[in-house]
Order: sequence, then C-alpha cells, then structure tokens
Amino acid sequence: MKVIPIFELIREDLECVERKMREVSRIEYEQLRATLDYLLGSGGKRLRPALVLLSSKFYPADAEKVTSLAAAVETLHTATLIHDDLLDNAFLRRGNPTLNATWNSVATVLTGDYLFARAAAFAAETKSVRVVSIFAQTLMSICGGELKQIFGSDQGQTTREYYYQRIYSKTASLFAASAETGALLSEAPEPEVQALRDYGYNLGMAFQIVDDILDLAGDEDELGKPVGSDLRQGVITLPTIYFLQAHPEDEAVTRVLSGRYGGDDEVRTAVEMIKESGAIESSTAEAKRFAARSRDALSTLPHNEYRQAMLDLTDFVVERRK
Amino acid sequence: MKVIPIFELIREDLECVERKMREVSRIEYEQLRATLDYLLGSGGKRLRPALVLLSSKFYPADAEKVTSLAAAVETLHTATLIHDDLLDNAFLRRGNPTLNATWNSVATVLTGDYLFARAAAFAAETKSVRVVSIFAQTLMSICGGELKQIFGSDQGQTTREYYYQRIYSKTASLFAASAETGALLSEAPEPEVQALRDYGYNLGMAFQIVDDILDLAGDEDELGKPVGSDLRQGVITLPTIYFLQAHPEDEAVTRVLSGRYGGDDEVRTAVEMIKESGAIESSTAEAKRFAARSRDALSTLPHNEYRQAMLDLTDFVVERRK
Repeated sequence: MKVIPIFELIREDLECVERKMREVSRIEYEQLRATLDYLLGSGGKRLRPALVLLSSKFYPADAEKVTSLAAAVETLHTATLIHDDLLDNAFLRRGNPTLNATWNSVATVLTGDYLFARAAAFAAETKSVRVVSIFAQTLMSICGGELKQIFGSDQGQTTREYYYQRIYSKTASLFAASAETGALLSEAPEPEVQALRDYGYNLGMAFQIVDDILDLAGDEDELGKPVGSDLRQGVITLPTIYFLQAHPEDEAVTRVLSGRYGGDDEVRTAVEMIKESGAIESSTAEAKRFAARSRDALSTLPHNEYRQAMLDLTDFVVERRK
Repeated sequence: MKVIPIFELIREDLECVERKMREVSRIEYEQLRATLDYLLGSGGKRLRPALVLLSSKFYPADAEKVTSLAAAVETLHTATLIHDDLLDNAFLRRGNPTLNATWNSVATVLTGDYLFARAAAFAAETKSVRVVSIFAQTLMSICGGELKQIFGSDQGQTTREYYYQRIYSKTASLFAASAETGALLSEAPEPEVQALRDYGYNLGMAFQIVDDILDLAGDEDELGKPVGSDLRQGVITLPTIYFLQAHPEDEAVTRVLSGRYGGDDEVRTAVEMIKESGAIESSTAEAKRFAARSRDALSTLPHNEYRQAMLDLTDFVVERRK
C-alpha cells in the first residue's frame, strides 16, 4: 500500500482500515465485488481515515473501534463521490473512468446507497451513540449543502460567505467530524475533542480552497482532469469570486460560468484571465489563513509525534500540487 | 390525519411520528420543503411506524425515543421508495406522479440521500447502539438485495427460494427490524424481542406476497396503477412462479417477462392466463401460511389490546384490496 510520507507513522493502522473497508467486498456476486474493489482502491489519499487515526492517538483508545470508524468515514466519502459523479456527469475522477461512465445509473445509485449503509454499519461498530449521531448529522450536512446548491434562491451567489458555507458542507464537515469522532473514541477531555474538531474544520476548509485553486492553476497531467472544470460546470469558487469582485464588468468569465461558451478556447481564456488577476494569490492567502488556524488549534494538545504529523499534514494540504 | 381503523388505538402516537417526520421539512429552501411535505405526506399506510409503536407497548418504554425510531423507519422507507422510483422509471406510485417524473434525477438522488441521512439521525436519537446497528444492517439488506437482483447470475430465477430471499430483502427485513427495535426500546425480555421480530418478519412476507398478488388480480382504480406492472418490468413474483411451474411450455407469459411483447393486449392476456391457472389461489394460501406464523409468534406475549391490534393487523394485511 502506498501512503504519503507523513502517514508512515500510522501505516499499519491505515492497512487495517484498508482491510476493514474491503470486507465490503465479501459478497457473493462477482461483478459487484470487482467494482467495489476498484472503487475502494482507486487511489485516494486516505486523508479522512488518517485524521480519525491521528486524532485518536493522544489518549488511550480501543484500536478496533478506531479502525471501524476510519473505515466508516472513508466508505461514506466514497459513497458521496459515487453519487456526485453521477450527478456531475463527470466522467473522469483521479484520471480513471468514473462508475457511471461504465455502469448504468441504476447500479450507480444502488452501489452508492449500499456503501452509505455499510458506512453506517461500520460507524455503529464503535458502539458510541455520539459518534453515530455526529456521523448522521455530517451526512445530512453534505446532502443538504448539495440540495441547497440546486434549489437555493442563492444560486449564482458570488459572496465568500456563501462559498464558505458550501465548502463546509461539501468538505470541511467530514474533516471536522473525522477528527472529532476520532478524539471521542479516545479518553480525550472535552476541550481537546473540540480542539481536534477545530483542527479538522480548518484543515478541510484549506483543503477545499486549494482544490479549487488547482482546478484553475494546477497541471492537467498531475490532476488527471482538464483545467477549469468548475467554470465549465458553472461552479463559482474562491478565485472566481475574487476575480469577479475586481472586475464587475467582466463578460468572458461570466459567459463560461453561464454555459453560453463556444469551445475550449473560451474556457482557456477565462482561466488565464483569472490567473493573471491576482485571484489565485488572494485565494492562496485565504487557504493559508485557514491552515494557520488549524495549526493553532493543536497548541493545547500533547506535543508528540502525532501532533507533529498533523502539523505536517496541514503543510502538505496547502503545498500539494494535485 | 387518516389512519386505518386498527390504528385508532395508537392514533396519538402516530400523529407524534407524523410531526417528527415533518421536522425534516424545516429547512430554508422553499421548493424542497414543499416537495418533502408532498413525499412524506403522500398517503402511505404507516404500517412500519405502527409496528414500531405497537411492539414497544408491552413493557415500559421512553415515548420520545419510540417516536424517533418510528420516524426513522418511515423516513428510511420513503428514501428507498424515492430511489426505487428513479430506478424503476415508475411514473406512478399510489396514483400520484413520482418524484422523478416531475423533478430531474439529480434532485431525486440527492433527496433520497438526504432522507437516508435524516433517518440515520432519527435512529441515533434512540441512543441505542443496538437499534442503530440493526437499522444499518437492514439498509444493507435492502440495497444488497436490489444489487443482487441486478448483478446476480441468478437473474430470471423462478424458484420460490429465490423469490423469498428477494422479498425478505425488499420488505420483510424492514418489517422485522421495525418490530424488533420497537421491542428493544421497551423493557421486553429477549425472547419476546425475538417473538416480535418473528411477527414482523412473517407479517412482511405475507404483506409482499399479497402486494404481488394484487399487482395481477387487484383493481386498477383502487391500486392507482395498471395491472401487471411486475410482468411488464420482467419481475418474477410468486403467482408467476406457480404458473410457470404448472406450464413449463408457456410462451405468452415468458414473452411479456422478457420484454418482447407487442402491446397492452399481450400483457392483459398473460395476466388472465395466470389468474385462470389457480396461481393466485396457491399464492394466497402461501400468504395465509405466513400470516398464521405471524399470529403464532404473538402467543407468548401479554394478552392485551396491543396484541389484539397486531392480530387484527395481520388480518388486514392479508385481506386488503389495495
């Protein structure tokens, strides 16, 4: 198993989580098993299970329950990706064909549902009602955020406040829940549980901002997807918000966002305009502010190798190129 | 609120459940709220929440937790119906247009997901890990059963064993779980918890067989959907199994099942052939055997008005015409 260097410290734990997740696949029908193996093994960075594991390390914890929780979090994440792909009609994720590109939508919806159920069952294995409750609330936040995006009267909103709400639902809520529930399964005192939740929240916000920056300023080969896909889908991200605020008279970017664009050239022009406007730098500064807050949140925790790994993880999230 | 006469005994409890479910709708975006209200209020018989409530009545129980559980069960059921409708491309359910007929599939998938999450959150309010765990296992059973139907090498199977497995996953698993978890929230001794689970299981099996009979022999106006829709969709149910076993040389019914039929006339002919073969009577006899087992399961429970309501419910399930 390949892990990013920071996670060498918890490599064995991550391998247990990997095995636990594969238990999903022990079902009779061959075609589904192969597909689940493919999905569960398609090379995510395992940031969320790592957050669970690291957050559980400061005080004594039951390793088996922590493994179940980490598997629950990553399985839930995988389930949401499956439905997202269907919804986005995104045919590439991590450079591999997405499930709905090869399968039909019936199977996609059901496989996602099945993994939701499996995630809930893993969460229940922690025997902690509080963990299960946080877990359910987080899934509601994720789905509620997406529904709001579709139905909200605030569609096309270009405020940072709205953007932050959206990326909280989409990403930071699960990061926060991963760190909080990991801590809850240990004997951590309540203030430290909250500190770890804060860490996860701010890390998740920084992570998503960087993701949105890379969609415009990243390398297509490294990302495994075309640049500017958010723009193409009409999704307004932080760099675009900065750009539009500085250029209220803009037509080129707005046209791409609204779907009324002629071809790839127009998208590329819009991307270049945003990149040249200083919007990437402003967004990076924002990501760094969240990163700094995530580091600050760790100040009251015992100074040990796990805390150091979490500090390193924050650096990794901000500095990554894919 | 309209309830079937048997449920007059628990009318107030059912009204609490109804209010609890509507809490779902207290979200900011108007369009979704209206739709959720419509979905949650679209006239189901509320059999599953009634099962939870009745099963909790034999021994002292925390009424608030029981309400949450009953809301969880019906919300989960609603979520599975929403995804089912999408999957079946069924445009009528209970005589009303289904969600995906008016909405697009994106919203349908997400609304279903949102209700899954909401159901899990309600279940977590019981503060019982065992309840949450049964709940998650049941959702896995439901989704797993559907996946098996799609991917299984046993497609087109015409054995009763396969049919029973399928209707267990689809229907009886949630009936069984409703009765079991309702009992678990009371101070019922373990053997009585199991007895109530048995009751729910057998009631669910009888319920689904009757549903499948009505699809062939019911009244279109009362059902609010065309007769023979299972046949049209290639779904093999118990009456069809009896028919095919008695007529191994059949071509008419097999042609409809395989989708190679010319029009409604062919479907109607196939339905008539099944009805005239005695297959309906054999299936009804099977439903009555399950019903008898559900009554037997109640023999060790305290003889009170709740037990009587459950006996009446069994009669209702077998005798209903829609």
